[in-house]
Amino acid sequence: MCPHALIPYKPANPKTRLSCLFSQDERETLACAMLDDVVDAIKDANCTPVIVATDLFDSDLVQVTITDADLSQSLNTILPQAAGPTLILMADLPLANADAIRRVIKTERDMAIVPGRGGGTNAIFIKDPARFHVDYYGMSFLKHMKIAEEAGLSCEVIDSFRLHTDIDEKEDLVELLIHGAGKSRRYLEELGCVLVVEKGRAGVERKNHPAPAAP
Amino acid sequence: MCPHALIPYKPANPKTRLSCLFSQDERETLACAMLDDVVDAIKDANCTPVIVATDLFDSDLVQVTITDADLSQSLNTILPQAAGPTLILMADLPLANADAIRRVIKTERDMAIVPGRGGGTNAIFIKDPARFHVDYYGMSFLKHMKIAEEAGLSCEVIDSFRLHTDIDEKEDLVELLIHGAGKSRRYLEELGCVLVVEKGRAGVERKNHPAPAAP
Repeated sequence: MCPHALIPYKPANPKTRLSCLFSQDERETLACAMLDDVVDAIKDANCTPVIVATDLFDSDLVQVTITDADLSQSLNTILPQAAGPTLILMADLPLANADAIRRVIKTERDMAIVPGRGGGTNAIFIKDPARFHVDYYGMSFLKHMKIAEEAGLSCEVIDSFRLHTDIDEKEDLVELLIHGAGKSRRYLEELGCVLVVEKGRAGVERKNHPAPAAP
Repeated sequence: MCPHALIPYKPANPKTRLSCLFSQDERETLACAMLDDVVDAIKDANCTPVIVATDLFDSDLVQVTITDADLSQSLNTILPQAAGPTLILMADLPLANADAIRRVIKTERDMAIVPGRGGGTNAIFIKDPARFHVDYYGMSFLKHMKIAEEAGLSCEVIDSFRLHTDIDEKEDLVELLIHGAGKSRRYLEELGCVLVVEKGRAGVERKNHPAPAAP
């Protein structure tokens, strides 16, 4: 089995919640590094990455460009045409590794879901993609569990902090600096990001660099 | 194998970062409900729970009362006396289940660690407890990895969001309401806590109840 892995990706002005630390250029480079880490993990797990991007971008990877701003609608157009078991994995999961992805695609049930922090959905694996549809807004994890149930699909929830940890906010960078081992962690270090402990809690500071002006 | 599971627990005035939502009595009841959930998971995984508490409290569970305020020092007194493989699991992990705990105690290495969010350590399993010591302050995960290395102990990092998710702050309650299935989730619901979506992100609100005065 060599499932396709669809990776939704936004090359232009991504991760705006990190604007407190990084310029737009830096956020775009970081997002691209995280995508590279995700793609490496996907290849290590013997899946075939397919980028589902809002714009064409410079890369050798197979890309599907979506003009529609609605991610769910775009994926729901792709899924019924998918030839065989399909994984959907977010591009902002730089802690992803092959072990975690293998646990997802080895499910014995009809599908598997990995919840993201705060009620989101970070990964979905569907053996028969035509039987499922996605709905990514709001608390999508509970919605996806309900869609699976209504479609009569058995669903395993995969217990992985590596796939649970999406990088959206400054606090999330702590996890990347502690547990990351790929390009995005190295890029954070190049930017001067370091771990600090404030009042007993871990945080991230950017050394020797003023915060960029608000966009 | 039936390892002992040491569970550090603070019965009096716990979880002060939840004071924005709950009174001291409510926080004590919630902490106790989370402990019950953890104990249930530990028993389901065929481990024997031993509470390591700062005060004696009303319970049938085996308790070790520590007078020392320093958790690390107390555990480091207990570990060399432990008879066989020992698990240390925090009491504020109400998403813990037997599957996740089994993955920890089944490690083929000398020990296993589960990182908590923000650089903490939520679970440690040590086959030969006399060879390890704990140091829980600051970014303890990296410290524990280093202590293991210096002691020549091979260590597996267990990838579990259920054991990664400690309940400390209001945002963490989202995870408990979405993924919890035990007493602490039911208690949150009794208190009127509900999931809400604000600006596309999940949050928790307490219905029909004013916030308690600041302690």
